[in-house]
Amino acid sequence: MIMNAFDTICAISTPQGMGALALIRISGKEAFEIVGKLFRNSNDFKTTPPHVFKRFDVYENELLIDQVMAVKFAAPKTYTGEDVVEISCHGSNYIQQKIIELLVKNRARLAKPGEFSLRAFLNGKLDLPQSEAVADLIESQSEAAHKLAINQLKGNFSACIKTLRDQFLELAALMELELDFSEENVEFADRIKLNTLLQNLKKEVSQLTESFKLGNVIKTGIPVAIIGKPNVGKSTLLNCLLKDDRAIVSHISGTTRDTIEENFNINGINFRFIDTAGIRLTDDEIETYGIERTFKAIDRADIILYVIDISETPLVEVEKELLFLENEIDFINKKLIIVANKIDELNELPKHFTDWDEYDMAFISAKRNVNLDEIRDLLTQHIDQKKITDTALLTNIRHYDIMLKIEEEIRKIETGFTNKLPTDLIVIHINSILNDLGEITGEITTDDVLDAVFGRFCIGK
Amino acid sequence: MIMNAFDTICAISTPQGMGALALIRISGKEAFEIVGKLFRNSNDFKTTPPHVFKRFDVYENELLIDQVMAVKFAAPKTYTGEDVVEISCHGSNYIQQKIIELLVKNRARLAKPGEFSLRAFLNGKLDLPQSEAVADLIESQSEAAHKLAINQLKGNFSACIKTLRDQFLELAALMELELDFSEENVEFADRIKLNTLLQNLKKEVSQLTESFKLGNVIKTGIPVAIIGKPNVGKSTLLNCLLKDDRAIVSHISGTTRDTIEENFNINGINFRFIDTAGIRLTDDEIETYGIERTFKAIDRADIILYVIDISETPLVEVEKELLFLENEIDFINKKLIIVANKIDELNELPKHFTDWDEYDMAFISAKRNVNLDEIRDLLTQHIDQKKITDTALLTNIRHYDIMLKIEEEIRKIETGFTNKLPTDLIVIHINSILNDLGEITGEITTDDVLDAVFGRFCIGK
Repeated sequence: MIMNAFDTICAISTPQGMGALALIRISGKEAFEIVGKLFRNSNDFKTTPPHVFKRFDVYENELLIDQVMAVKFAAPKTYTGEDVVEISCHGSNYIQQKIIELLVKNRARLAKPGEFSLRAFLNGKLDLPQSEAVADLIESQSEAAHKLAINQLKGNFSACIKTLRDQFLELAALMELELDFSEENVEFADRIKLNTLLQNLKKEVSQLTESFKLGNVIKTGIPVAIIGKPNVGKSTLLNCLLKDDRAIVSHISGTTRDTIEENFNINGINFRFIDTAGIRLTDDEIETYGIERTFKAIDRADIILYVIDISETPLVEVEKELLFLENEIDFINKKLIIVANKIDELNELPKHFTDWDEYDMAFISAKRNVNLDEIRDLLTQHIDQKKITDTALLTNIRHYDIMLKIEEEIRKIETGFTNKLPTDLIVIHINSILNDLGEITGEITTDDVLDAVFGRFCIGK
Repeated sequence: MIMNAFDTICAISTPQGMGALALIRISGKEAFEIVGKLFRNSNDFKTTPPHVFKRFDVYENELLIDQVMAVKFAAPKTYTGEDVVEISCHGSNYIQQKIIELLVKNRARLAKPGEFSLRAFLNGKLDLPQSEAVADLIESQSEAAHKLAINQLKGNFSACIKTLRDQFLELAALMELELDFSEENVEFADRIKLNTLLQNLKKEVSQLTESFKLGNVIKTGIPVAIIGKPNVGKSTLLNCLLKDDRAIVSHISGTTRDTIEENFNINGINFRFIDTAGIRLTDDEIETYGIERTFKAIDRADIILYVIDISETPLVEVEKELLFLENEIDFINKKLIIVANKIDELNELPKHFTDWDEYDMAFISAKRNVNLDEIRDLLTQHIDQKKITDTALLTNIRHYDIMLKIEEEIRKIETGFTNKLPTDLIVIHINSILNDLGEITGEITTDDVLDAVFGRFCIGK
């Protein structure tokens, strides 16, 4: 990809398909010249100053293709750092593709996915986490995911990695200092101080690594399992939650819901049902309901909605079942919410249940849509909203993998201290960490890393 | 719709879905003010002159929603004739809808389909045929359909209607003149001259009405039927033509082909297969092949590809079959092409076939993809390419319906002349025609007409 960084590239940057308008983007040294060739009034385009949006006629030979609006942006203050032109044309497939065809005829090249952002990165307009945030921003489906991406785009995450890197640099400097005096046998004197510094760094790194769990589920949706015996009202509850989805997506007509069918959005956070296929098969639920299936669902979930029919189930039975589940499954880091359904079939709530405070509990009627907000509150309580905005969260699997490597290196340094290894052997690991951190921010990159990062972008970005 | 013409409206103008970028359009008196409220740097937006494309930060309370590019266009030199703002934002569904939500919160209203173009019409920026051309332009899938729409958008069709109207006005004036002298009994003296004028007009109107057949099929695709006995290679031929589709659509990766699966494009003209479902069922073709089905396919087609297996079929049999078909079906205005398939199974072409010049004929091998271009040439010959660019074609069913009404009125005027009806009774019909022509250009409109015209637009146009 980097080999072709001198070509002028072009792409349709708006979503595929027919619309009122479409945007075509061109970037590269020859961007102004190539685009000018498309216009009947090309001299007018030449003399139009950057940032001025004007109308131009696109012709192929004597045939008018479209009347478009075009604007120039002059390097280096552009997204890519190169000369950029944006053309806004009529959104027919024919026109969009005809204009691309004409650009290619005039020696522009179709951009690869993410190639505009790759150029932005190569020209120092964005670091690697910021580039990754651009892709996240485009993909974000919920307020929380959007917040994470915006934070990262603003450079908050990169700043946090930079601070970490400075501290490791300091550690390295102190080690080097020790190395200078090694002849005088003072080498172990400062190891206590060095170890304190390392322990602090270790804590910071592990906090980041742990934050990946939250950062990742916010991007992909927090996995929720609905479990419970047949006929306790699991499907009704699921339908209630899906139907009342408060995502703004559902408020604007014409938005396709298909892709997020099993997701729902509460207070800007995306939840994702797992194993809902089983739950939906209400007809032969007795057959599909199996303890194994339940185990699997719990295993993959962060939150378990355990639904009971409070009109029929005695407390002792619930306690027995929970005891059984907790014996079989590791509930650490999972939140269990007991949903006492069918309160509409009771005159009053049984006291032994309302007094029971071992678990989070919601008393609802899914059928009558009563108290569903209690479940919503309990679901969102699970997420520390402050964390999303105030701290740098690890949201990217690439960063996570590198952080795990760094944790491993830290363990090696610890062992080195314990075993009183020579300084130069320990410094190797610190350098390796510095290298790893540079890979996150993109100061150190390989073609493979760039391909992986920019390959997941959509075309035109 | 017209009642709300004072609101400021907003819409996403680019195709639905996720992309690198999306365009949001705002039009109306308060467009600048409302958009300004979204920006942290709103004063900067206020002082930015029109046509200058600048970056702005969209905030909701303290939360950064997106960094967008925005440009103002000042009334009246805009698409709608009102103040317009275009915002180019990141193309995540969340951001697109969040910005729309913020605009609506600040008292913009979601635009109805075609409402921007309706305003352009109401403010005299486009006449009705031009507005209709905008919708056609967006929907155009082939070069020919695109040409038609561009021609109409440039006002060529409106000019032709205007000329027609002027001539009817002249006729009316001459009739009025006659009316003035009616006391003196000279009324019938000039009727010969009037009738000549009427006959010319009649011819022009009927040429337009007849042009609808071409204009309409260019928009929707020219219907082609492939008929022939089982196992002569109809499916293979169809697949060959579909696979080799020269539409540029297929050259650019990622374009969805689903919607035009049964269409193919030759030299910029769109052809549409009818009754292909029957042809595709190759397994039990003998059963699905029925004479009734063939009749129906021929009936709906403009072009019939009659496929024979030249390696097995004697000329007499072909002649017999054709005689039978021509006795049963009206071939007027239809083009019959005989496709002699399986030439690869012969050493040389049978002379009695090559000498046979009663029909257009192509000698091919669908299996070996030989001579398919012969069929393509014959298909495109059917279309008078010059007509598409040089004359005003009737492409719109609304215009066509009105022209049919006008033809009816002309017949009434003719009858009036024949029966020597009083001038004032004839003038009624001329006025009705003037009114009809005004309905085409939009000088005379009703809410129903506007709803019908603009309701078929996509949102954001």
